[in-house]
Amino acid sequence: MLNKKFVINIIGLVLVFEAFFMLISAFVSAIYGESDLIPLLLSTLITFVIGGGAWFFSRNASKDLGKGEGFIVVSFVWVFMSVFGALPFIFNGDIPRFTDAFFEAMSGFTTTGASVLSDIEAVPHGVLFWRSTTHLIGGMGILVLAVAILPYFGFGGMQLYNAEAAGVTNDKLHPRITQTAKSLWGIYMLLILVQTIFLLFGGMSLFDALCHSFGTVASGGFSTKNDSIISYSPYIQYVIIVFMFFAGTNFTLFYFLWKGKFKKIVHNKELQIYSLVLIVSSVVIAVTLSLSASAAEYEKNFRDALFQVTSIVTSTGFVTADYTIWHPALTYIIFLLMFAGASTGSTSGGIKIMRHHILIKNTMLEFKRMIHPSAVVPLKIRDKVIQKEIVYKVLAFVMMYFVIFVMGSLVLTFFGMDMDSSMGAAATTMGGIGPGLGTVGPMNNFAAVPEGAKWVLSFLMLLGRLELFSVLILFSPEFWKNS
Amino acid sequence: MLNKKFVINIIGLVLVFEAFFMLISAFVSAIYGESDLIPLLLSTLITFVIGGGAWFFSRNASKDLGKGEGFIVVSFVWVFMSVFGALPFIFNGDIPRFTDAFFEAMSGFTTTGASVLSDIEAVPHGVLFWRSTTHLIGGMGILVLAVAILPYFGFGGMQLYNAEAAGVTNDKLHPRITQTAKSLWGIYMLLILVQTIFLLFGGMSLFDALCHSFGTVASGGFSTKNDSIISYSPYIQYVIIVFMFFAGTNFTLFYFLWKGKFKKIVHNKELQIYSLVLIVSSVVIAVTLSLSASAAEYEKNFRDALFQVTSIVTSTGFVTADYTIWHPALTYIIFLLMFAGASTGSTSGGIKIMRHHILIKNTMLEFKRMIHPSAVVPLKIRDKVIQKEIVYKVLAFVMMYFVIFVMGSLVLTFFGMDMDSSMGAAATTMGGIGPGLGTVGPMNNFAAVPEGAKWVLSFLMLLGRLELFSVLILFSPEFWKNS
Repeated sequence: MLNKKFVINIIGLVLVFEAFFMLISAFVSAIYGESDLIPLLLSTLITFVIGGGAWFFSRNASKDLGKGEGFIVVSFVWVFMSVFGALPFIFNGDIPRFTDAFFEAMSGFTTTGASVLSDIEAVPHGVLFWRSTTHLIGGMGILVLAVAILPYFGFGGMQLYNAEAAGVTNDKLHPRITQTAKSLWGIYMLLILVQTIFLLFGGMSLFDALCHSFGTVASGGFSTKNDSIISYSPYIQYVIIVFMFFAGTNFTLFYFLWKGKFKKIVHNKELQIYSLVLIVSSVVIAVTLSLSASAAEYEKNFRDALFQVTSIVTSTGFVTADYTIWHPALTYIIFLLMFAGASTGSTSGGIKIMRHHILIKNTMLEFKRMIHPSAVVPLKIRDKVIQKEIVYKVLAFVMMYFVIFVMGSLVLTFFGMDMDSSMGAAATTMGGIGPGLGTVGPMNNFAAVPEGAKWVLSFLMLLGRLELFSVLILFSPEFWKNS
Repeated sequence: MLNKKFVINIIGLVLVFEAFFMLISAFVSAIYGESDLIPLLLSTLITFVIGGGAWFFSRNASKDLGKGEGFIVVSFVWVFMSVFGALPFIFNGDIPRFTDAFFEAMSGFTTTGASVLSDIEAVPHGVLFWRSTTHLIGGMGILVLAVAILPYFGFGGMQLYNAEAAGVTNDKLHPRITQTAKSLWGIYMLLILVQTIFLLFGGMSLFDALCHSFGTVASGGFSTKNDSIISYSPYIQYVIIVFMFFAGTNFTLFYFLWKGKFKKIVHNKELQIYSLVLIVSSVVIAVTLSLSASAAEYEKNFRDALFQVTSIVTSTGFVTADYTIWHPALTYIIFLLMFAGASTGSTSGGIKIMRHHILIKNTMLEFKRMIHPSAVVPLKIRDKVIQKEIVYKVLAFVMMYFVIFVMGSLVLTFFGMDMDSSMGAAATTMGGIGPGLGTVGPMNNFAAVPEGAKWVLSFLMLLGRLELFSVLILFSPEFWKNS
């Protein structure tokens, strides 16, 4: 029997937590003395009462748990957070329709950053702060999920996080989940703090600096400006590049940095490949852009290339240039990078470098296996043998990722979106990025997307953020038969 | 040590065989009394002398063979056939440039059907017949390859052909390769003969009927008309639909039909799924097309849908309608079907139904494995357990297919082709289909494609036709270290 009470208890608790953050946005509103104070307080109240009530009446839930409860909690938490997170947008009338407001909130909590807002600068500060706070919360959520919960579920090869990147099995980053979570959240908050200071130095207001830091370190991408990062100074753009890079790094490596274990950082295979992908892609794009440009534009081309590549690979989604008007090869590279993802154990979404590495390595080994059919050819990363079961799960994950991408984009075309826009929209939402191609490109937003398509895209964001299987398993009869 | 003499011997023999077929085209030219007689005779002579010479001087090659020789022979045979097969196009001036003529010949021998000819009807009968003959030869080649040679190489899960579809392991279609090949060729020729008769009944000339039958049963797609099958009668279009369907069926099933083993046909899983894919896709397309059409167009819409779906899935590439001007969802479906492929053991190219079936089934089983982590959950097809090793190889194959698709299309965008055209061109050549999207759509041809891109596309045709690994392995250092 499914332990329903426990599920309700946890979701209630998370909603109380959400209400607390809403209250902070209400304070921001009070500071600016704007019209959104009452809507924000009302949202806080509703969320607190319903969340607190659910938590209170289920407080005697037994602690008898299986994986089933885990799967349900994870998916439902994101959905309920988005339902209540949509309230401020609706109550203040910035995004009056529920579909749109839910899309915006889901985009925030999944740290995607795709927006339906056409005029962001018309939205009052309290609601805008709430919008960026959804990234902050989403980022915190995903860190716990990636390190503590998903490896326990045992799918998609996330066990690798332990095996390769670090800590949990070999070095015991911290023996207990709550301790691990607290360490990661400490690093997360520290990164936000440091980035905010750097942005303040660049002349940003405290409000904008905080919102952009939330958006960066959570790899979200909501900006407080209509043109994202385009009009900011090169200094600010470089600061954001650096912190996007950090957000896409395995957070355990910052722990090693703290402990002075530099060797562990330098030898981290995923960090090496992640850096290589960024450098090679940026150089190819910068050089191609510069072929038809004057020397005066070289620095800007390099900066735009590095910014867009880092923004897409880390699944942040901030924009400094319209990559859809670049040479078709460059637009295509950006589209392909939407399937990259950054490091495991970071806030970034998508497939992630480690999985790609395993797949490519395994495919190369296939040749060896073909030439020596009877030999045992194991896959190793830094001399550690990766179990065949894990390779198998990684293969299944990536396969499922593409199946969902194809089915998702196909459904979007049935809503009348053209092929490029559909593929771009599916790729960018699954990867948790933000901007896509065509009608949902970096200079557009998702306002004009058909109503039904917005629900599809919200679902794709959820799927991508929760590593597919933890959501999909809820649709499997086998799951309910066993619960 | 690589047995080079043996490789030369086999290639020489194949060229002699090719010269024999060229001579037939010369006869056709003589019948029509056209200008291409001398060019065809010259091509025949050159091919015969070089092929025969190579064969003669290597006739004492030892029979000491490994897989290495097999891999080399397979790739080189297709390349050399295309080099010599390009001669008639060049000598008669229909396709004066070598790049273009090689592309056309490779497209023929790989039974792709992508063409650089803008005015097909201006080409004399002898050369046109040679063009269709490349399909005939390519189809014969692939039948032997699929049944006798690729399973022996042991990659991409082609062993399945034996395990599931039939004959070779369980029922011993014929114990010896040559016997098997002869049986398959018998079925192949019979299908061509029957289709030719049906087309003659529809009022086609013998010449056109033969050429179109070659193009159909080999799943090639070269037509003798500028507008492919568009202007032909509904009767002829239906005949071609039926024979495209046959060409995409596992040829062993025809053997069972002959032997009266109907149960084996009805219970064939791949045939069932293959049929289902065709029916579901056609119905979705026909209904969507008919939503905005008058009742008078229903039959034509159904016919166009069924024709295009069958043509793409079987990798034939004949055209009766411009699917690029359909509703974006329908164009996208056609694009996705370019990755389908028909049955194993047929003349069709691409990934093929059986591999998709295994992947989808395996992904579904992942859920079961997640819920019961310690249980052994084997993959079964019709109660037969498919070895994990084979599932693994299928996964690696499909992964490699997409990696090459992505890399191939990326290279094409660097030649300045737009994203849709590049993706369409890479998908259609790898799948051995013919028409793509955008500038290489069904109403266009490959004449305007940049020179370098034509070489890339020729290589993609070869890769796709030879199931990737048998070509790619030649680029692996491991291979040459062992040979």
